[in-house]
Amino acid sequence: MDFGERAIEQAKKLHGKIEVVSKVKVRTREDLSTAYTPGVASVSTLVASNKKLAYDHTIKGNSVAIISDGSAVLGLGNIGPEGALPVMEGKALLFKEFANIDAYPIVLNTQDPDEIIAVVKAISPGFAGINLEDISAPRCFGIEEKLRDIGIPVFHDDQHGTAIVILAALKNALKVVGKSLKEVKIVIVGAGAAGIATAKILKSAKIVMLDSKGPINDKRTDLNPYKKQILKSKKYMNVYSYNAAVSNADVFIGLSGNAKLAPQEIKLMAKNPIIFALSNPTPEILPKEALGAGAAVVATGRSDYPNQINNVLAFPGVFRGALNKRAAQITEEMKLVAAETLSSLVLKPTKDQILPSPLEKGVALKIAGAIEKL
Amino acid sequence: MDFGERAIEQAKKLHGKIEVVSKVKVRTREDLSTAYTPGVASVSTLVASNKKLAYDHTIKGNSVAIISDGSAVLGLGNIGPEGALPVMEGKALLFKEFANIDAYPIVLNTQDPDEIIAVVKAISPGFAGINLEDISAPRCFGIEEKLRDIGIPVFHDDQHGTAIVILAALKNALKVVGKSLKEVKIVIVGAGAAGIATAKILKSAKIVMLDSKGPINDKRTDLNPYKKQILKSKKYMNVYSYNAAVSNADVFIGLSGNAKLAPQEIKLMAKNPIIFALSNPTPEILPKEALGAGAAVVATGRSDYPNQINNVLAFPGVFRGALNKRAAQITEEMKLVAAETLSSLVLKPTKDQILPSPLEKGVALKIAGAIEKL
Repeated sequence: MDFGERAIEQAKKLHGKIEVVSKVKVRTREDLSTAYTPGVASVSTLVASNKKLAYDHTIKGNSVAIISDGSAVLGLGNIGPEGALPVMEGKALLFKEFANIDAYPIVLNTQDPDEIIAVVKAISPGFAGINLEDISAPRCFGIEEKLRDIGIPVFHDDQHGTAIVILAALKNALKVVGKSLKEVKIVIVGAGAAGIATAKILKSAKIVMLDSKGPINDKRTDLNPYKKQILKSKKYMNVYSYNAAVSNADVFIGLSGNAKLAPQEIKLMAKNPIIFALSNPTPEILPKEALGAGAAVVATGRSDYPNQINNVLAFPGVFRGALNKRAAQITEEMKLVAAETLSSLVLKPTKDQILPSPLEKGVALKIAGAIEKL
Repeated sequence: MDFGERAIEQAKKLHGKIEVVSKVKVRTREDLSTAYTPGVASVSTLVASNKKLAYDHTIKGNSVAIISDGSAVLGLGNIGPEGALPVMEGKALLFKEFANIDAYPIVLNTQDPDEIIAVVKAISPGFAGINLEDISAPRCFGIEEKLRDIGIPVFHDDQHGTAIVILAALKNALKVVGKSLKEVKIVIVGAGAAGIATAKILKSAKIVMLDSKGPINDKRTDLNPYKKQILKSKKYMNVYSYNAAVSNADVFIGLSGNAKLAPQEIKLMAKNPIIFALSNPTPEILPKEALGAGAAVVATGRSDYPNQINNVLAFPGVFRGALNKRAAQITEEMKLVAAETLSSLVLKPTKDQILPSPLEKGVALKIAGAIEKL
């Protein structure tokens, strides 16, 4: 039985993967009068008089809403809110397991950005953070932007979670090959949520990006505002062919969903190339082929090869830290500290270990601690 | 220490009364690959291909959203979403304890009816039912009306939960005094959510209602559409003074929030009057005074007197039944069956016991079973 079959069996048997449970028992009239009326009226009056007390006296302070419109679910595409729900349950489960955060999935039957923004604003009083998930680009950028100032952190994990883990992995991969981030040329294939966020977080010498139409450059007339913005960066290199993009590149980051990287293209890259082939479930190139073509370090999104780039290494710790300090936003500085902390947890990076295991439960608390200290 | 002090201590210590927990453990890579990627993709694909499977294969089938805008919280009034949250947590706790339903509180920072309607529609794919709570009248009527056809039950508990328990209690109180519902005159003081719903569900001979301005009658020019509708009922009696309203009434139902019933007014009522003084925490008249003035049966909303009219006797069973049969709506028939079942659980009603105890946990399953059979 493969993982898909097991997952279906598990879902059907348990009717979903999370449940809402009570922290108090209701056995006597006194229990009822304390947890509900009349006692609860005193809690309500107190919290209404000073809304900040909601962080302490209600579930707010430890609660995160996982919001998805089902428009870009895993590699499955626009499958809608019901199809998205099993993924959001899984995400909630990881929030609890890795960061003891109470996360609740809220899947939407609208894909209109203004409506999504209105829903998130409306439900925000009961949460200390919002995790946007599996919302397609470029809509995701504008949605997150317009939710920046609602008073609690709004974090699109497909963008920033991925970018943080890639930055951490790349720091250690570069140590393995003895290069510095500031001097390398990086080619990113895929200009969706993860691609754009990764391009923004990587402070390298040169960056080239490709989308499904080819290299993003100053001759293109079909670019959305977010791709145009990347083009304006000083580190950005205009190139006009795929070969020119990969030629002499030190790092290849595949976030395309379905592009391929051929072994002969790796041979065009600089010495000791680093290959992050992150499309799931089928990487842009399999590790064996990449290594055979001269790759020095290879990472994928899969658990059955070394060097798994998995968002679970970032989002639980980032949110734990943000919740602990009651942050109003997750700042660039917090993301950079998360990446630095994550990379530092591998004391001696090797080609087969540039990141901690996704199952290593201390990771989230380390990241949270570093964020709290900011 | 009173219940309010205990409740504040409990809230602060536990940071709210509910939590979100995982039904599966993530200890190995295999666990992670089953509960999350890649396994979850198969569940998502399956559910997306047939959205009804969400009832079985996700949390949807057992999940209820508790929605409040904080506009009419307990007797506290319009205290806002943060102040409402402790009450909604308590409600979620009761859903779990009495009906094993996973209910999640969603408090809104909007009080605009159209925005509330849009939010409920948007979040509905992840829930099998919506419990509207503590939303002020008359807004609550239009909001519920416009959400009737969204495909899952939407139930405003302040209206229908209260009306169901009052109907059940009244059936048994009338047995105690040997009268029939069809022949009695009922006066309802309070024309908010609970008052209007109660007037609609009671099929008595005569009904009179009063709001804060006095009797509702055909001379009034300040009535909202919901009060006007009650006025059109054949059973409705136009009266023009408070004394005319209570005069010869068999039943007094106080749902006012703050009105008073004087002992001499009870003396104007018919023989063996029934008094439901349901304002909380201060009833329209205390049981001792009412009994002293000749009341035959007295009920309140409080747990420290006999005959507590408490919504927890209705909503867990009503939702359990609706969820079990995957109902698209909670119909009038379901409400009437819930009331009939609830009253039948007291085999021999007496003046001191017209309802089961709110702590009797079998009640919800009995009501659910009766609704399922419809």
